[in-house]
Amino acid sequence: MSSPFYPPLRTLMGPGPSDVSSRVLAAAARPTIGHLDPLFVCLMDDVKRLLQFAFQTTNELTIPLSAPGSAGMEAAFVNLLEPGDKAIVCQNGVFGGRMKENVERCGGTAVMVQDRWGDPVDPEKVAKAIQTHPDAKILAFVHAETSTGVRSDAETLCGMAKSAGMLSIVDAVTSLAGIDLQVDAWGADVVYSGTQKCLSSLPGIAPITFSSNAVEMIATRKRKVQSWFLDMNLIMGYWGEGAMRAYHHTAPVNAIYALHEALLMLEEEGLKASFARHKANHLVLTEGLSELGLKLAVSEPWRLPQLNAVQIPDGQDDAAIRNALLKEFDLEVGAGLGELAGKQWRIGLMGSSCNTTNINRCLTALEAVLRQ
Amino acid sequence: MSSPFYPPLRTLMGPGPSDVSSRVLAAAARPTIGHLDPLFVCLMDDVKRLLQFAFQTTNELTIPLSAPGSAGMEAAFVNLLEPGDKAIVCQNGVFGGRMKENVERCGGTAVMVQDRWGDPVDPEKVAKAIQTHPDAKILAFVHAETSTGVRSDAETLCGMAKSAGMLSIVDAVTSLAGIDLQVDAWGADVVYSGTQKCLSSLPGIAPITFSSNAVEMIATRKRKVQSWFLDMNLIMGYWGEGAMRAYHHTAPVNAIYALHEALLMLEEEGLKASFARHKANHLVLTEGLSELGLKLAVSEPWRLPQLNAVQIPDGQDDAAIRNALLKEFDLEVGAGLGELAGKQWRIGLMGSSCNTTNINRCLTALEAVLRQ
Repeated sequence: MSSPFYPPLRTLMGPGPSDVSSRVLAAAARPTIGHLDPLFVCLMDDVKRLLQFAFQTTNELTIPLSAPGSAGMEAAFVNLLEPGDKAIVCQNGVFGGRMKENVERCGGTAVMVQDRWGDPVDPEKVAKAIQTHPDAKILAFVHAETSTGVRSDAETLCGMAKSAGMLSIVDAVTSLAGIDLQVDAWGADVVYSGTQKCLSSLPGIAPITFSSNAVEMIATRKRKVQSWFLDMNLIMGYWGEGAMRAYHHTAPVNAIYALHEALLMLEEEGLKASFARHKANHLVLTEGLSELGLKLAVSEPWRLPQLNAVQIPDGQDDAAIRNALLKEFDLEVGAGLGELAGKQWRIGLMGSSCNTTNINRCLTALEAVLRQ
Repeated sequence: MSSPFYPPLRTLMGPGPSDVSSRVLAAAARPTIGHLDPLFVCLMDDVKRLLQFAFQTTNELTIPLSAPGSAGMEAAFVNLLEPGDKAIVCQNGVFGGRMKENVERCGGTAVMVQDRWGDPVDPEKVAKAIQTHPDAKILAFVHAETSTGVRSDAETLCGMAKSAGMLSIVDAVTSLAGIDLQVDAWGADVVYSGTQKCLSSLPGIAPITFSSNAVEMIATRKRKVQSWFLDMNLIMGYWGEGAMRAYHHTAPVNAIYALHEALLMLEEEGLKASFARHKANHLVLTEGLSELGLKLAVSEPWRLPQLNAVQIPDGQDDAAIRNALLKEFDLEVGAGLGELAGKQWRIGLMGSSCNTTNINRCLTALEAVLRQ
């Protein structure tokens, strides 16, 4: 027989999950109520409103999907694409590649726009792809590439999609609440995120928002969405307006409690203040890293404050260093992902993890471990 | 600006979620650690072992999917079926119909075996369907129909599938831990469940198990699984053997803490003791309901102890009664679902909700409200 699991108190400075505050953990532990309870329905309405605030949108269809960010990505593609459709997909890291997988598994064709991992998406290449493939229905890209720590110019890319009559799908898993993300002002059509990054809630939920154009595209599909679980036509019946909600699946009630509390904390701080905190702490961290002789992998204008890609110095053993940080300092930093494995570390400053205490802990620990 | 959400303390006697114990809620609130943390990987191994215990199986591929039971159903079908495949689907309630949707959204053909809602699946009808459609690849049915409170004979049905060279898909969302479910002894191939029924953990996770025949069918598919998120070929890389786990998605860490604790409680009680508790309390409840003049909708041999379908007496207002139970007694009982809406209530005795205190509370409340 096993015994209960008591996790250690880690400092989470990887690519997510980030530190979950005691407020959010306490919310998660409140008594479970039914997913159709009138009081839960009120909570759902408040979560929708708070997500609209976080996404800077008035989109009616703005909800938390009952599954992780990867399912948010899949929801975007399966709802918008039909077999035979073409999508332009920008790849400058791992998650652009995952978008390609999603397009193809929907029976669509992905036109790839490739950029070096570590660079932002190049709008000029995208313009050429749009010119060559005016029949594409979708332009998809990652706003904040979690695998490389790079921001791309979402405003410009969404504008290009709109001018070309295409809908945009934006991966905002790592950007939401960490850097500016103006869904309405930029004209983004489907934007999804995760709860375990800059929102610092429990992992496992995917906030997502759909523009009216996206909703219309879903409503006028020729074929049913291939996923029953992610079919927005059905999910709207549960998360839609009015007190009567149609049963679709059992919502992850306690994870929604936690998300609500995390969103309240964001509202209390304010979006601009949150962005400023991420930026300011990022500058403190990068200065400290520089003093340790560590180099950032991304050029300054495109760095994500919430996720800092650091080049592993020659001669240092990637796994040994990360293990030492974890075992001696209870500090998690991220490994490189995909082709960057072994070459970079990813130091997160996301949401509740983004504070000076964590930065000092991280710099002290790195200094000690790199000297060993 | 909104305020924190403090849910009332409901007594959950609907079709799920069931009451979540303070032990499980406390586990959910422990500090979040990384989904690739070596200690989390150890926890994953223990959760797999405990799920094997609960499913009564030695299947290696026995894991909790990071999404609700409906996604468990979808995972079963998208992984096993390819376009053009035929599946025999038994329907005696809402969830058989959902299986049909899943088959068709995979590009497959569903041969339906219909039984009256409230009756079990009729093995003779299934035998005829197998005879008429020997080319079907799958036989799918619901072990415990959550919409009707009916048990079907899973052992016989799995045996018929095996004899016919078909694989079986078994919906055990409501049966796991409430009534006997012998995955290995009965030769079931894919069996999925939910955490919010007789396990009484947080809603949002789908335990699932695959036989070696099912794993082989997945490994030898001609086409990729249409869902990236639910592709078991990829998920196995994260939940598989060995200390090195490939990143697939960020696991819902705290929901796994909760599930682990709920499974520990099941192990401490023992499976047979849990089944006996559900049975004994069911008999106490049905006796009390009978004294109130309420009739059960399902014939005795096929009643689920954990979910009691009760006929709404003539002249009683379904919604008014349930609202009064909720508002005056903080008691949730389930409405009828699908064609049974307005005709039946569903009184759950699942997991932590299955105790004499709850039964007394329910009978007292029903008596008071029905008299009003």
